[in-house]
Amino acid sequence: MSEGAIKGKVTVRLRPGVLDVQGKAIANALADLGFGDTEVRVGKVFEVSLDAADADAARARLAEMATGLLANPVMETFEIEVD
Amino acid sequence: MSEGAIKGKVTVRLRPGVLDVQGKAIANALADLGFGDTEVRVGKVFEVSLDAADADAARARLAEMATGLLANPVMETFEIEVD
Repeated sequence: MSEGAIKGKVTVRLRPGVLDVQGKAIANALADLGFGDTEVRVGKVFEVSLDAADADAARARLAEMATGLLANPVMETFEIEVD
Repeated sequence: MSEGAIKGKVTVRLRPGVLDVQGKAIANALADLGFGDTEVRVGKVFEVSLDAADADAARARLAEMATGLLANPVMETFEIEVD
């Protein structure tokens, strides 16, 4: 990767209707620790440095990466940010 | 949790010096898929709805949750955002 790499961020979240088991487990653990009643959804964030001509090109490339590898479109949605 | 719950986000990342094995694996997979040379770091994002008096109180509470459960301070850092 060259010096002029562009940094982008892909955030992957479970679709609203999909049960978030990990989130439920964390909410239970938080309740046990005395944090009271909460609702927790867990997602992943991929910070990617890539070679691209400009921010738009990087955004398009990150969208391809998200649909091709980082997210499961059946259960997940993704959001892309480029610095 | 009441109707007036506050939504916050805790992003947990590996500290810069810590080897991100999952990120390396993803960078390798992206290369195999023809995406060229990239650098990838993987983090987690916890979206938490909680009862709190105001945004500052929510922020303080989320910081306690992060240090107490969501992040491992030895290897990870966290960042808090409140809507």
